Amino acid sequence: MAVAKEPLRIWCNFPFYDDLERELRDRTAPHRLTLVDSSVAAPAPDEPAPQIVLGQPDVDYLLSHDQRWVEITSAGYTAYDRGDLRDSFRKRGVLLTNTSSVFDEACAQHLLAMIFALARELPRCLDNQRGAREWLHDETRRGRRFLLGGETAILYGYGAIARRLVPLLRPLGMELIGVRRNPQGDEGIRVVRPSEADELLAEADHVIDILPASDATGRFFDAPRFTRCKRGARFYNIGRGTTVSQDALVDALRSGQLEAAYLDVTDPEPLPPEHSLWDTPHCYITPHIAGTHDREQAQLLDHFLANLAAFSSAAPLIDRVI
Amino acid sequence: MAVAKEPLRIWCNFPFYDDLERELRDRTAPHRLTLVDSSVAAPAPDEPAPQIVLGQPDVDYLLSHDQRWVEITSAGYTAYDRGDLRDSFRKRGVLLTNTSSVFDEACAQHLLAMIFALARELPRCLDNQRGAREWLHDETRRGRRFLLGGETAILYGYGAIARRLVPLLRPLGMELIGVRRNPQGDEGIRVVRPSEADELLAEADHVIDILPASDATGRFFDAPRFTRCKRGARFYNIGRGTTVSQDALVDALRSGQLEAAYLDVTDPEPLPPEHSLWDTPHCYITPHIAGTHDREQAQLLDHFLANLAAFSSAAPLIDRVI
Repeated sequence: MAVAKEPLRIWCNFPFYDDLERELRDRTAPHRLTLVDSSVAAPAPDEPAPQIVLGQPDVDYLLSHDQRWVEITSAGYTAYDRGDLRDSFRKRGVLLTNTSSVFDEACAQHLLAMIFALARELPRCLDNQRGAREWLHDETRRGRRFLLGGETAILYGYGAIARRLVPLLRPLGMELIGVRRNPQGDEGIRVVRPSEADELLAEADHVIDILPASDATGRFFDAPRFTRCKRGARFYNIGRGTTVSQDALVDALRSGQLEAAYLDVTDPEPLPPEHSLWDTPHCYITPHIAGTHDREQAQLLDHFLANLAAFSSAAPLIDRVI
Repeated sequence: MAVAKEPLRIWCNFPFYDDLERELRDRTAPHRLTLVDSSVAAPAPDEPAPQIVLGQPDVDYLLSHDQRWVEITSAGYTAYDRGDLRDSFRKRGVLLTNTSSVFDEACAQHLLAMIFALARELPRCLDNQRGAREWLHDETRRGRRFLLGGETAILYGYGAIARRLVPLLRPLGMELIGVRRNPQGDEGIRVVRPSEADELLAEADHVIDILPASDATGRFFDAPRFTRCKRGARFYNIGRGTTVSQDALVDALRSGQLEAAYLDVTDPEPLPPEHSLWDTPHCYITPHIAGTHDREQAQLLDHFLANLAAFSSAAPLIDRVI
């Protein structure tokens, strides 16, 4: 990576709020910043090609132009996770970063919200508030609300979100098992390969899906795998909707094999209003908001500026993918 | 306290499940256990008075009989928190224990559920799921879901629940301030007196009420105190409903002075279906279930047996109140 001495051309199609857009302009000077609407997918053909691309650019453009670094303003980068792009970028020394560290903390907190909501029956209480408004205090209490201490959670996909979850879940006294393709031994919790995890599913009270979309993860959670789960387990998905067979999930919930599911991702998205998942008993859905938070745009700006400084001095970039 | 050598008479009106009732019988032998229905408030006049009373006994009975130890099967003991009972028990050397340690962990987890639910907009998402089923992902994100790191929580009532909250909230990076009548300096977080807390309310993003019912706490959170709060603060109550002026709370929510409230306790309880709190915007209610959990009865049994062993050997009792 060369150290940049001349002003660079930066092209951005991310819709920053006005105040942050001004800050981006100020703090990228003297580089030449071109800001376009998010509906514009690539620089115009008559523009000089930018060295740096920020936002959600068109893949074909990236494959045929000579940018040196691309920063994607999201954690997921499925559209860019292709063999041809990877080969082309590697061959040409083009860098690709995502911005996953902007979203990890919110994702971890969202998962905690889901776990606690089920443990404390918040959805049932809200349904009661919107309906009969009974005082459910005196009904039989056995087994409805449950303590998390001593329960086992198995986390599929051991990246930054799972690592962040460990110090948040551990003080509750939960047993944690991570699942990743290549356990490193430095994870701080027990980590196993997917094949070993199948045997451990029967012990897990909480099955947590943080898997990315890929050929290997498509419909990973299918009917046989739900059958392996402990009866009454809770299932959570903050990974990708495509990693779950939703028909199998609905069956597992209807039969009671799973006690409940809390999903932030579905397939497709948006989930059509008539989709059966919305109506499945004990299935709760948030509309792909796990990573979103109040400081998101400010942190995206800081992320880019930190990486721009690193790029300019040939230092390692944060959240580098290629 | 005398060391018991002879079998003791134990009277219990707590409705243990059948299996736990059998266990209580087995594990209290050779003491003489009398188990009655929870609708029976006191031993019959013709029974020999028990030395030990477990459950929710009638206060007048306790004042006029010679029991040596009373264990209340709840954390709250408002009915027993009276000057005449306190004086009478102290004069006669009668011990009173509650069972608050059985409920502390669940209360702490319930409060976390409330905090996370508001931070991640779970009630709004569930209302959407029960209603229009829109995919709210792409709407303006600014300020709707928020990260907890760096936010300030002020905890009113620094007992076992607050102490348990500290190691659970701290890993999130929250600033914690405790409020108690007599700060000890060993709390591990900043702790102030109620008078000082008034000045700090303006800094708190989360106002957490864990106050017990007492003459000093009646309507403690009133209109002037809500006015002192930071605009947009969240208010939580897992203490007692009587510690809040509910009219002032409704006003604070309607005006936007408070962004949201999550209440586990109200005044009265049950809260009548027509009460305005149920309908107040951004006011969420759970029916006094914060302390309830799946292991509650088993832990109440263990609590009593541990205290029985301590009582029998004149050792200190857990959760002793008098």
